[in-house]
Amino acid sequence: MSSETQAPAKPAKVLVAAGDLKALVAGIFTARGASDADAATVADALVWANLRGIDSHGVSRVPRYTELFDKGESVADAAVTVERPRSAIAIVDAHAAPGPVALTRAADEAIACAREAGIGWASVRGTVHTGAIGYYTSKIAQAGYAAIGVVAGVPNMAYAGAKGAAVATSPLSVAVPAGKHELVLLDMATAVMALGRIAQLKAAGKELPPGVALTADGEPTTDPALAKVPTPVGGAKGAGMSLVFEMLASGLAANPIIPAYHSGSKEGRRHRQNAFLLAVDIAAFLPLDEFTATIDDTVDAIKSLPAADGTAEILVPGERGRRSHAERAAAGIPLGPKVWRELTEIATGLDVPVPAPFGG
Amino acid sequence: MSSETQAPAKPAKVLVAAGDLKALVAGIFTARGASDADAATVADALVWANLRGIDSHGVSRVPRYTELFDKGESVADAAVTVERPRSAIAIVDAHAAPGPVALTRAADEAIACAREAGIGWASVRGTVHTGAIGYYTSKIAQAGYAAIGVVAGVPNMAYAGAKGAAVATSPLSVAVPAGKHELVLLDMATAVMALGRIAQLKAAGKELPPGVALTADGEPTTDPALAKVPTPVGGAKGAGMSLVFEMLASGLAANPIIPAYHSGSKEGRRHRQNAFLLAVDIAAFLPLDEFTATIDDTVDAIKSLPAADGTAEILVPGERGRRSHAERAAAGIPLGPKVWRELTEIATGLDVPVPAPFGG
Repeated sequence: MSSETQAPAKPAKVLVAAGDLKALVAGIFTARGASDADAATVADALVWANLRGIDSHGVSRVPRYTELFDKGESVADAAVTVERPRSAIAIVDAHAAPGPVALTRAADEAIACAREAGIGWASVRGTVHTGAIGYYTSKIAQAGYAAIGVVAGVPNMAYAGAKGAAVATSPLSVAVPAGKHELVLLDMATAVMALGRIAQLKAAGKELPPGVALTADGEPTTDPALAKVPTPVGGAKGAGMSLVFEMLASGLAANPIIPAYHSGSKEGRRHRQNAFLLAVDIAAFLPLDEFTATIDDTVDAIKSLPAADGTAEILVPGERGRRSHAERAAAGIPLGPKVWRELTEIATGLDVPVPAPFGG
Repeated sequence: MSSETQAPAKPAKVLVAAGDLKALVAGIFTARGASDADAATVADALVWANLRGIDSHGVSRVPRYTELFDKGESVADAAVTVERPRSAIAIVDAHAAPGPVALTRAADEAIACAREAGIGWASVRGTVHTGAIGYYTSKIAQAGYAAIGVVAGVPNMAYAGAKGAAVATSPLSVAVPAGKHELVLLDMATAVMALGRIAQLKAAGKELPPGVALTADGEPTTDPALAKVPTPVGGAKGAGMSLVFEMLASGLAANPIIPAYHSGSKEGRRHRQNAFLLAVDIAAFLPLDEFTATIDDTVDAIKSLPAADGTAEILVPGERGRRSHAERAAAGIPLGPKVWRELTEIATGLDVPVPAPFGG
């Protein structure tokens, strides 16, 4: 099973309309106790990730949320609370609410702070699975603000010189509004390859590319059976980014993850995430339309560069995801049969109506 | 000349005491018209980089500053101006002042904003060579604030799919104060390998490691003679980071670099840099000593992890530079003969006294 052509025929994917999928996910979260508004927020964030082609952060996570509700590690109807100790900062305590609920609130708070003070920082304490962080920075950019976002979580990535999982694959996202172009959206994990992609290759029994994973002993490997820990992008650079992101996101939220995790306690290994979102009020620096014209010019300059051999088109961050969004919004979202089965089983168990897929 | 042992004996380095080197650099800048305070700031920033072992960002840059003064592209006695349009933001216009002067002012302004509003953002417009950006984030962290810093400059790095230099090797720095430990300091270029290190290998005629540079046609190469453009860390990730850093640093400073550079105009290719520094008032979130205790615990957790085979000690960001600092502060700073000759020639031409090195 070492190459694509020798693999058995894959079970066909199910195509579901984005609106139907949102209704299904919102129905599940409402049935588990979330308010209609919070359920719609979670559904919108997860389906957005699927639309963008980031399936690892989309509706495939629904079973994990319901499992966290069952274990009491996430609370579907948690009341998120906000402190505003100074004009430019907000501390959003998720009280174990799902990530999309806490981070959507944080995005609103960061914008509110920025409107008052020029920039705004919202720290998020104690949430679970945020989904794709680009969803929140995009929201901020759509409101005419520049955005930076970081999430910190439980260690699952290598660190230079250490055996095993040391730090998290903590993502960084930056979003900037443009004028005639769509907003520019960087959304990257600090790992070389996303965990979901490594899992896909492992499941297919395919050899991993060099440099993406280590064995349990901390040795580089391309053998999917031995690959235990993804490696940080750029070695010490990605590992260092992840570590300082934990210090900023978890440290300022007064909810450190790394020391408790490595203490070996069961509580310390519990799934949880912290984050921060930063909004910059561009209009406080220069007229917004001058800024967005600059971003357009910058995008045009990059896309107009001479292309290297074999490159059909030079892309800017977010462009690939936006095309996926347009295609999937029109044609439906392809879901693997396992994901679709899990979703329909959960929905059926909660008396939530299951939409008819386009095909199967 | 493909291995170290076959290379001819290297000319001996000159060892200069850090204080003497600062006095020499400050003397040169004063003689070129800088105020005593500004000259001392530049000297401190450059010698700091040498102390930390980042020789590419240290006193070897002095000839380049004087060349920029000669061409009128930098102004030794420029009066940096500051606008404070909102409580949490400052716009620092360098008016072509040397980077250390502009960014030291920006660090002070970011802290002043953060003291008032909880966080502070200082954009820097139109400076030249900032030196090592970790110098400024460290200053902010030493004052008890968390710091993020970014510099944008003239394109000198590859971008996925493009031939030639497309974006800059724009660095990211994050600094966080600790308690019993020294502050944690990440300071990384968005390139795989620093330009200075590639130049060293090229000068020595040594083969480059794979993945660090492209030819003029955008093809990967390990041949130092063909290597023209360094590659971004993590491919599209490093390139994307660099591009959004330009948008944030140059876009908010209303001084875009990339569109003008790629327009091909001579003016567009002129050396210049923009930056931003962010300061976070930790005490607005939680008591500072609780935060620094968390950072200590996090550092301890990482350093106590089981080490991979062949690793003597696990390091956190900034630790290697701090050790270099201690060693070089005691033993003197080693300078290559070319750098020392250039400095002494410039100093002699300006009637600035040249200190006696430790050895030669």
